[in-house]
Order: sequence, then structure tokens, then C-alpha cells
Amino acid sequence: MSFNTFGHVFRVTTWGESHGPALGATVDGCPPGVPIDAETIQQWLDKRKPGQNKFTTQRREPDAVKILSGTFEGKTTGTPIQLMIENTDQRSKDYGDIAEKFRPGHADITYWQKYGIRDPRGGGRSSARETAARVAAGGIARAALEQIAPELIVKGYMVQMGPRAIDRAKFDWDQIDQNPFWTPDAAASEDWAAYLDSLRKSGESVGAIIEVTAQNVPVGIGAPIYAKLDTDLAAAMMSINAVKGVEIGEGMSAAMLTGTENADEIAFGPDGPIYSSNHAGGILGGISTGQDVVVRFAVKPTSSILTPRKTITKAGDAAEIITKGRHDPCVGIRAVPVGEAMMACVLLDHILLDRAQTGEAVLGKIG
Amino acid sequence: MSFNTFGHVFRVTTWGESHGPALGATVDGCPPGVPIDAETIQQWLDKRKPGQNKFTTQRREPDAVKILSGTFEGKTTGTPIQLMIENTDQRSKDYGDIAEKFRPGHADITYWQKYGIRDPRGGGRSSARETAARVAAGGIARAALEQIAPELIVKGYMVQMGPRAIDRAKFDWDQIDQNPFWTPDAAASEDWAAYLDSLRKSGESVGAIIEVTAQNVPVGIGAPIYAKLDTDLAAAMMSINAVKGVEIGEGMSAAMLTGTENADEIAFGPDGPIYSSNHAGGILGGISTGQDVVVRFAVKPTSSILTPRKTITKAGDAAEIITKGRHDPCVGIRAVPVGEAMMACVLLDHILLDRAQTGEAVLGKIG
Amino acid sequence: MSFNTFGHVFRVTTWGESHGPALGATVDGCPPGVPIDAETIQQWLDKRKPGQNKFTTQRREPDAVKILSGTFEGKTTGTPIQLMIENTDQRSKDYGDIAEKFRPGHADITYWQKYGIRDPRGGGRSSARETAARVAAGGIARAALEQIAPELIVKGYMVQMGPRAIDRAKFDWDQIDQNPFWTPDAAASEDWAAYLDSLRKSGESVGAIIEVTAQNVPVGIGAPIYAKLDTDLAAAMMSINAVKGVEIGEGMSAAMLTGTENADEIAFGPDGPIYSSNHAGGILGGISTGQDVVVRFAVKPTSSILTPRKTITKAGDAAEIITKGRHDPCVGIRAVPVGEAMMACVLLDHILLDRAQTGEAVLGKIG
Amino acid sequence: MSFNTFGHVFRVTTWGESHGPALGATVDGCPPGVPIDAETIQQWLDKRKPGQNKFTTQRREPDAVKILSGTFEGKTTGTPIQLMIENTDQRSKDYGDIAEKFRPGHADITYWQKYGIRDPRGGGRSSARETAARVAAGGIARAALEQIAPELIVKGYMVQMGPRAIDRAKFDWDQIDQNPFWTPDAAASEDWAAYLDSLRKSGESVGAIIEVTAQNVPVGIGAPIYAKLDTDLAAAMMSINAVKGVEIGEGMSAAMLTGTENADEIAFGPDGPIYSSNHAGGILGGISTGQDVVVRFAVKPTSSILTPRKTITKAGDAAEIITKGRHDPCVGIRAVPVGEAMMACVLLDHILLDRAQTGEAVLGKIG
Repeated sequence: MSFNTFGHVFRVTTWGESHGPALGATVDGCPPGVPIDAETIQQWLDKRKPGQNKFTTQRREPDAVKILSGTFEGKTTGTPIQLMIENTDQRSKDYGDIAEKFRPGHADITYWQKYGIRDPRGGGRSSARETAARVAAGGIARAALEQIAPELIVKGYMVQMGPRAIDRAKFDWDQIDQNPFWTPDAAASEDWAAYLDSLRKSGESVGAIIEVTAQNVPVGIGAPIYAKLDTDLAAAMMSINAVKGVEIGEGMSAAMLTGTENADEIAFGPDGPIYSSNHAGGILGGISTGQDVVVRFAVKPTSSILTPRKTITKAGDAAEIITKGRHDPCVGIRAVPVGEAMMACVLLDHILLDRAQTGEAVLGKIG
Repeated sequence: MSFNTFGHVFRVTTWGESHGPALGATVDGCPPGVPIDAETIQQWLDKRKPGQNKFTTQRREPDAVKILSGTFEGKTTGTPIQLMIENTDQRSKDYGDIAEKFRPGHADITYWQKYGIRDPRGGGRSSARETAARVAAGGIARAALEQIAPELIVKGYMVQMGPRAIDRAKFDWDQIDQNPFWTPDAAASEDWAAYLDSLRKSGESVGAIIEVTAQNVPVGIGAPIYAKLDTDLAAAMMSINAVKGVEIGEGMSAAMLTGTENADEIAFGPDGPIYSSNHAGGILGGISTGQDVVVRFAVKPTSSILTPRKTITKAGDAAEIITKGRHDPCVGIRAVPVGEAMMACVLLDHILLDRAQTGEAVLGKIG
Repeated sequence: MSFNTFGHVFRVTTWGESHGPALGATVDGCPPGVPIDAETIQQWLDKRKPGQNKFTTQRREPDAVKILSGTFEGKTTGTPIQLMIENTDQRSKDYGDIAEKFRPGHADITYWQKYGIRDPRGGGRSSARETAARVAAGGIARAALEQIAPELIVKGYMVQMGPRAIDRAKFDWDQIDQNPFWTPDAAASEDWAAYLDSLRKSGESVGAIIEVTAQNVPVGIGAPIYAKLDTDLAAAMMSINAVKGVEIGEGMSAAMLTGTENADEIAFGPDGPIYSSNHAGGILGGISTGQDVVVRFAVKPTSSILTPRKTITKAGDAAEIITKGRHDPCVGIRAVPVGEAMMACVLLDHILLDRAQTGEAVLGKIG
Repeated sequence: MSFNTFGHVFRVTTWGESHGPALGATVDGCPPGVPIDAETIQQWLDKRKPGQNKFTTQRREPDAVKILSGTFEGKTTGTPIQLMIENTDQRSKDYGDIAEKFRPGHADITYWQKYGIRDPRGGGRSSARETAARVAAGGIARAALEQIAPELIVKGYMVQMGPRAIDRAKFDWDQIDQNPFWTPDAAASEDWAAYLDSLRKSGESVGAIIEVTAQNVPVGIGAPIYAKLDTDLAAAMMSINAVKGVEIGEGMSAAMLTGTENADEIAFGPDGPIYSSNHAGGILGGISTGQDVVVRFAVKPTSSILTPRKTITKAGDAAEIITKGRHDPCVGIRAVPVGEAMMACVLLDHILLDRAQTGEAVLGKIG
């Protein structure tokens, strides 16, 4: 994993800036013969697309993906797949102030210090628009998984907005696609709508926690020690814009438990080992157990807000800044499909890695 | 980052099992001319060494490191450095039960399912003994940092044990080396001693949260997007045994804040930009700001406990298991030097990467 | 180096097929602040462009490159640079036969056997059109080298066509750009023109040897042992379509020499060490000496010829095949700018790697 | 492939200097369950061992390998395998002159200029002793291949010494293990014995060409474009000490052929496609055809000779040097098992890579 590439054998390199001509993903190492077309990928991009309701940025981007290479007659050929999304709504004027002043909480200042040059239009490379390329690449990963592990399901959803967490007792998978927050708790959805509306009106923003669950993950993927499945998932999620924390299974709360509370007991079910609980998040020693793989990540609130904030200019002068552009009061909402995409990419990569090292059979039988 | 290697240009590959002849680290890409000897590395290993007090495993390992290559007359030559630690206390009989039964919460079952073979002695490759190799490699990284960034300080400490967190108001850097828990809060240390003693006597274990802070980190290290400094730190910490959550700066709590609360305002100080706060943990857009880099990670409680737990055998039969070996009631204690080592390795790697791409000067001046 | 990517810190991933919508290169790790625009890159592409004279394929492709990302106001920003070349002349009908029959000497049969699917239009991914992406990426590398090592010159030329080698005594740098074969020997050029014309008329093809020399290479780039400068150059050149042999300095002929003949003696000149000869091709122990770096590679004759050849169909039936498309009688001609591009990429990558590990100063002074 | 590591998923990192305490290889990514012990590896090391006859260095090293990790009860576990060879015959005094004077044709001067420090004892890291680690790692690769592709045979042999090439008409596989040069031509062996004896007595050395053939290579391994099987073999062989040229199949001579001569015609045999010839060296488009994979590489003559050569000292003063140590008149002899080891490692790596991307079945059927 390095620079703008992630993955070991299924490798994704994203490129492009918020307001350049286009952005995209170069996907290498995909298995051949996977049915894929632009429409299939587009459905995932549409989930992330801005401007769908009043809770996401009003930038109007169709985010239409084109496949430039790597497929023939609707199937992948095993060669690199180039996915391109043209930028159409590039109102650069909105961002004029940023060229001279550094927005607190943004990459403006560090990009400038590191590179001595940066593309200030819409945040350039540091813009959350980069995540569209991840979602497109995730579409390829999902299509490949459908062939190799057809039972595998990846589902993301929001479990907390600001201080307001969902009630796990009300968790309903069917709710997730029924509300603008992709939350499994219908009551939370209503509560958050009112809460976010008032934040939006006051030009404020708020953070969120996203959880992504993968069901029916094959047993035995992952690898000790620096490519533990947990490690690669942590890296994948932490690489998303604005993410500052990642948890697997019990996560940070594992610190609060005793050994008795934390260990998932094992029994023998009709199809092999079953577990009394899933504190481990489906991963033991870096390797999948066959339970649900569960990851959570925290998205910080966007710093692009209407409240004036103290900052400095390139010349070092004190200044105030208000960010007027079209922004999301809760960027966490659009992070849901992004987290799903990263999960799909990591799981596919590890399934391929596993069959590289151990072949296609499960080696250690139980029972 | 792949399999048993981490790092981009400063690359560490660890090898070895708990009860094999030896374990160690192959360190590649270290700058030449760095003064280093076994004694310097040993001081860090001694910090991690078991059996130092009643709160850590009674396994008696001198953990004496030998440098087998890569140095000449007390300095690194730029070629691979091989660090070897021989295992001396290999009481394999203690672990007999594990060969047939799977310990809940351990890698026993997944290693078996994935590989069809595993070294059951002391957990084999999944043992926390692997972290000795990290600490040794971290000693090399620290020595190199002393030349390249002599002001840089890396310090780890425990901030929570089970449900008991430190009081941040009592944070005292000088306390850290004064107590067996490397905690900056003297009162917490006393409290934890009593708490852990009672857990230990009842054969129980507990989790912990470790924080690692790096001071005087050069501005401008890190890289968008999949090698964000946050990403590589998250991967580094999550790759440690038993870690299930990682946070940068505000971490998971960033989700609870508004944009106004979270963004660190910028002013201009005598030596460049200064910040009103450090919610970002010293990293914006994946690149260091020059503020303290702050990482936290949660270590789950070891599942090697005296309470009988339900499990199964290889044959699929229901069984009970008690893990009698010599174990730590709170493995988080010995994770402190490990977290420090990972921080040192990641920072050195990114300093080298930064000078690869941008050279040695800071490119974007302010003021 | 893996799959469709080469390079360590300056990394190039190419993508695209002969007759898809576009092809290109994703260039990651380029230093920031490098002046670059499409015109600068285009000059190198024009050197490789088909249809320039009767000795190269009559396919008419403008090969116009677009920069989709990674630059701002005419300079690189340090983020990934996407270079796209749209395919305009896609006469797929020319290639109909190939879908069912395998061309001897082509990748048709192995792609089919490996992937079970392939893009037969113009050879798909195995087409020499892929090298346009290398040339474009090489344009970026050259621009970066102009800043970091402004004295460095990369120059490729043809030294043998079929059995006819140049006369080294007539080597004239100024001749290279004066003839369609980029050869430094004017007499050879005339001879080859007649020879190739007769081959072309009979529908035959022939191989060639290309030499690429880099002058004023900084001392001390390269790295033992698996990233020796020789190693990475060998990999870079061998990765080009149709290349089957690579030599550094004396190359295969080094086998014929005695130790006395082969070793380049050392003296001390006004600017440091000078050498009595350059059998080593400017590289000792994998590291540059400061002498010219000299690489040669052999390009096999294209198998797309008018002579009927025996082959089989997918069904396993015996068949004959004539390849009627628009092809080069000597593909080696157009390999000259490709070899230059690979040299530029490898040297830049190693200059960056060297400053990562050792910083910007030369460490070991002599005299 | 980077620095001191090669391979994609089967990855070998070598470490160690000629006269340090030990040298070895860290082998990561090996499949689990492969039967292996030190004796099996030792047989390959014994082939390379110095002092076996008057044609190789008289340094007496047992080159005894120890397995420090990665196996359990005689089988690989899938975790990193550490192979260590202790240096026992470290007569450092032999090399005293080298610390101040640079040997022409050696890495002495470039290591010094790059690193500002080097281990002058026996050439340090640049010594051919490093190749012992490759041979050990190759022993692991061979053992794994025996399980995965049991028909596959890797065989190296010398085809040219100085200007004296073998007579291909006299090629006899059974001769290879019958003479000190591992040559398939018995007459050449006798001729070379006399020739080399006279060179040895006059303190002279000579180069050689080694060929390595792999039979029964599975169809479909290798990958376009930067991980072509040719590319990785070229890199692997060129990374060996003193190698300056690499050829696949027809190699440099491909330049001399016409398209009609070079293309291997295809017919349909009882087990699938068969070819009329093997100019391609078993690789088309970077992917194996199932024919013999044939690689040749040239080893330059060692520059450690008794003839006085002109050089300079660190101070820049003119000097003469004679290298008195124990050296091989033809280092190419001992390169034979090294070339075999590299071939085995590359083939295993690509077999694993292939099953990662395409699974275990052959995808494109013919006939």
C-alpha cells in the first residue's frame, strides 16, 4: 500500500482533483471473465452522488462513469480497468478565498507546506470528490466477489450522528435503504433529520460514525502479521477523507472488557464452528472466522462552515474565514457507500491473496 | 505493506515464532552512517521484557538482541540489518492442550483453518513475542531519527485500563517512567495496581488503551491519499497483536463534534503557524502540521485466562479450556514500547519518503 | 514492480488496449513544481507516432495526449498525473481472423489460455500501442530530471537491423536525428533503407538492437541487490513488447573477456574519479559510477507478416494465417523513443530513491 | 521488487555480508504444508559451495544452513521462513588493501561514494557470498514447486566460457552433473579444464554464459506487462552479482532474424498446442506457453586478479592494486546453482500470482 495505490494483488490507484477535467481509478489485478458494465458501477456511484436531498452538497454532478479499458464484450479481460468520471460542475469561483487563506481543519496548509504548490479549486486532490473513484473501483470489486464468493454481502450504515447514536435494539436491516441517512434505526432517522436541518440552517456541520458489515465472508482470509485483515481494513478506512478513527468488532471498547467478557466461545454447528458472540468482529489473529466482519469508522465534521474562524494568509497575516461553497452538513452520510467500497476491495484482495498462498481448498478441516 | 513486511522505503520484515530457535527483524532501507549497536537496541527491548514485575508474564526471557548484518564499526552501512533474538525459555509442555483444542479469542482456530498446519507452541507466529522484533526494529528507527530529526521525541503511555481512564488534568510526563504501567497519572497508577492485582489473582485479564505522542515532527511528512500519515499509523498500530481500534487525534470522538468545535484555528507564531488546539492529532489531509502527532489504540484483554471457557476440539467435539501458561493479566502494559516502536518506524519511513519526492527543503513558505 | 506498474517511488501504471476508447498512464510520486504541459509530452509521442514514413505502420493516429490530473497552472502538484491518449483510428475489421486463429509468435494463444477471454482487436493489451503510454510517462520523467539533474541527457538509437550492425568507428551523435532509423551511422542508414524496403515489399519483417545511453548520471544512484540499477533497467527494457534480450555495458560479450580486459581502470581527474574504459556500462555493484549508463536491447521481428504460417484455431484445427493489418517491417525503429522513456523513468526513480535513503549530499568524498 | 527483496507474493529478502557473523534469507509467502528441512536445502548449497575443486575459491565454508522459523514438524506453516548461514572462515586480513584502494571493476568505489561507509571485509554486501542466501531460498521454492507442479524441472548449465562455446549438437543432459563446469558438452568440459587451469595459474580470470531451462512449466503463468515472465526472469538474473546481460529464448540474436524465421509455428498435439520451434523461450506476451522456459545470462570475469591494475586511493592518489585473496578464476561456475535458484523462485511466484488472479483452472480451452 503506497501513495495513491491500495491493495496487494487487486490494486486500485485513484487520480484526479475536484475541479480538474476528470478523476478516476486504475484497477489492476482483477480476475478475468467478470461481467461488468458502466451501468452496474453507476448504481453505486448514484448512492454517493451529491445533491440527492437537502442533507448533501448541492453541487450537481452526474458522476457518470466511463470504462476506458480492461473489458471486452461486457467482461473483464484481466488487464487494467480504467474508470473515468468527468467533472462537469466546476464553479471554481466559489473557492477564491482559499487560494490565499488556509481553512482551519483542511489540508490547505499542509499541502502548501509540503509541495509549495497546490490546486486550490475545491480542495484539489484533498477534496472528498476523490471518494467517487473509490466507489467506482468498489463496483468492480463487488462484481468480482459476486463470481468468487456469491453469498458475500457488504452493507454500510450510519450508527451515530454527532452525540446521537442509534438504538441497537431497533436495528432493522430493511430500514437502511429507506432513509436519507442509511441508518437501520427508523427512529434515529427522524431525530437526525430535525437535528441536521437545524445545523444546516445555522451553517454548522457535525461528525458521524459509519459501520460496515460483511456477511458470509469465507473462512481463512487475511494474513499474519502486517497484512492482518484488521490491518488492511483499518488502513482502507483511515485513508478515506476526514476519517480519524477505526474499530474492528468491539473496537476501542475492547479496552473496557475482561478476558471472560471479550472472548467469543466456540461450539460446533451444522456447518462448522459457531461462536457465542462476535466481539472479534469476525477476525482472529488477522484471519477471518466466517462470522460477520464488522468495521466502524468516525468521520469528522467538515470544517467548511459559515461560522467565521481564525486563520492566517500565505503572507502570515491573521485573517478570518467563512467557507461559502456548497458543502455537506454531515459528510458522514456520503461516506456510507465509500466505506462499503473499501470493504469490498479489501475482501476481494484478501480472497485472491489467500488462494495465491493456500490454493482454493480450505486446508484445516474441523469435525 | 504486505504479509510480514511494513514500510515503504524503511522496510521491516519480522519473522519467528514464540517457541522456535529465534525470532527477529530484517530491516531494509535504513540510511547509512547511523551509529547503532546492540546495547542501544537492548534498552528498548528491556522496556518490553517480560517478568519485570508481577503484572507481566513470568516467562523469563533475556530477549538479548544480536546484530547479524548491516553495520560496520558501529555504524549502519545502508544494507539490510538483521536483528536476531534467540528464544531461551521454551517450556513447550505448558501449552499441550492447545494442539487439540482451540482457545476462544485466539488465532488457534483461524490459523488451523487457513493453513492446515500451525505451530501450537506458545501460539507460534501469533504470539505477542513477535512484538519483540518490532521493538528491536524501532530501536534502529529511533537511532536514524536521532540523526535526521534530532528534536523528535516519541513517547507512549497507558491512558486507560479496563473501564478506568486517567484524569487528563493530572497528566505528568515525568510520571511515565516512574510506574509499572507507564502512565502519566500517578493516581491512576495506584488505582490500577490494586485493580490488576485482584484480576490477576482471579485468573482474569483486562484490556487497555495506549496513547503514543510524537513531538517535534517535521512539517510536511505524509502523503495523500492511501499513504496518509494517519493511514500508515493506523495500519502500523492495528497490525500489533490484540489491537482492535485505532484513533488519530480526536479519534472516534470526532464524530460527536460540530465543525466549529473540531477545527483547530490557526495563528502565526514566532516559528510559523501555530494552532489553537489539536483535534487533528497533528495531521491534516494526511500530512503533518508540526503539532504533536497523537495516536491511540485499544488492546483487547488476553483470552488466556483461568476461567473455563467453552470451545471445540479439532474433531469438532465440545470441550472446556483453561489456559494455564504464563500470561499477562493486562497485555496492554507491554504494548507501550511496541506502540512507540511502530510510531518511530512510520515517522522515519515518511521522512525518507518525503525527501524522496520533495527533497530536503520545505517547499511552501508561510510569512 | 508488479503487474501493470513499474517503479519504486516514481511509479507508472499503464492501461488501455489497442482498439479501446483510450489508453494512458497513471504517474504517481512525481516531485511537485515540475513545469509540464501536453505540448512538452507531445514532442516525445510524435517521435514514436506511426505513419511518419514508409518504414512504420500506416495506421494514422495523432496520439494526442491529454493531462487529466496532477498539474495546476502548468506545474506538477505532487499528486497523481493521469495521461490519456484517445484511440481514433480503430479499424477493427482488419483483424477479424485473429479472433479464431492464433498468430504464431503473438500473445494470442497465451492470453486465451490464461484468461479465457481477450480483446482480439489489434492485439488488445498486448499491442505495441501500449508503449505510447510509456513514452508519455517518460515525458514527465524527463521534465522532472531537467529540474533535479539538468545535465543529464538520455539518447536512444539503433545499432543493428537484422544481421547488419553499425560501424562504431562512424558513430556520430548528430546523425541520430537525421535519419528514419535514429542511427548514429549515416552509412548504415542508407544500407538499412534499401534492405528494409525489400523486406517490406515481400511482406517480411526483421529484428533490431537499440542502444540507450544516459550521460551525466549522478554518481551513487542504484541500490544493492535486488534494486541494482542494472536490475531495474533490465526489467524496464524487457517489459517492452517484443524485447527478448538486455545488456548493460559489455553485456553478453562480458563472458568472452578476461578479468584484465574487462575491468575499467581508475584514475583521478579534475572532477573526481575517471575511468580508462566503460565495460561496466556506468554501473558497478548496481550503483552508478558517473560514467555513461549504456543499455542495449533486442527487439524481435514482428510476427505479423504476409508469409502464410501454420497455426491452429480455438477448436484445435490446423490452419494457415497471414496477418494483413498495417504493421511495421521493423518494430525496432519505434522502440527507440520507448527505450529512452524507460531509461528516463528508471533514472528518475533511482535519483529519488537515493535521496530518500542517503539525502541530497554525496556521502563518500574522494580526494 | 525493491532494494533487498524480490518477488511479488513469494518474497525473498536476503541479508548479510561476506565477513559478518552470518548471512541469510527471509522467505515470506511460502505455501503451508510443504515438507522441508535443512538437509534438503543443504544439497543445493553444497552445489554452490566453494573449495570443491581447483576451479573455485579455496575459502573453506561449510555453508551450513539453519532454519530459524516458519516450519513445524518438518513442514512449512505459511509464516516467514528464516534461513541463516553462519560465516566461519573470515580471514579478514586477506583484504586489508581494499579499505584504502578501490579495486577496478568492483563495487568498492560506488559503495563508498553512495554510502560514505562500507564493510571492506571481503567486499561486504557486494560479495558473491550473498548468492548463498539465494540458493537457500531457491531450495524452499523447489520444495514448494514439487507439491504444486511436481513435473516441473529446473536445470542450469554452462554454455560458454570466455570465447569457447559448447557445441549444441553434443548437448547431453546426463553430462551436466558429471563435470566441474556443469556443462552438457563433455568435450567442452575437457577443453575448458585445460583453458581455465592456464588462466588460474597466471592469476587471470574469465567470463561465462549460463543457461537455465525449466521444463514442464504450467501454461499461462506470467502477466502483462510490467510483470511479464520475461521481465521478472530478466530482473532476477540481472540482480545476481557480476551479471551484465540476460536473454530469453533467442535473446539478442532475435534481432538478426526475420519474422518468418522467428515465429514458432503452432500445431495441435495429443495434449494441446505444440510448437515447431522455441525461439520465444517458452514465453509469448509475457505468459508461459508450456514449452521449455529458457534463460541465459552472462557473468563477467571477476576483477580480483593477480595482474596489477591502475586505480586510486580514497585520498585520490594514483595507485596499483593486485587482489591476492582466494578467488574463482571463473565465477560463472558457481553461478549455475544461483541461476537455478532464481528460476525456481520466479516460477513459484508466478504460479502463485496466477492462481490469485485466475484461480486454479486453465480458463481458455483449446480443441
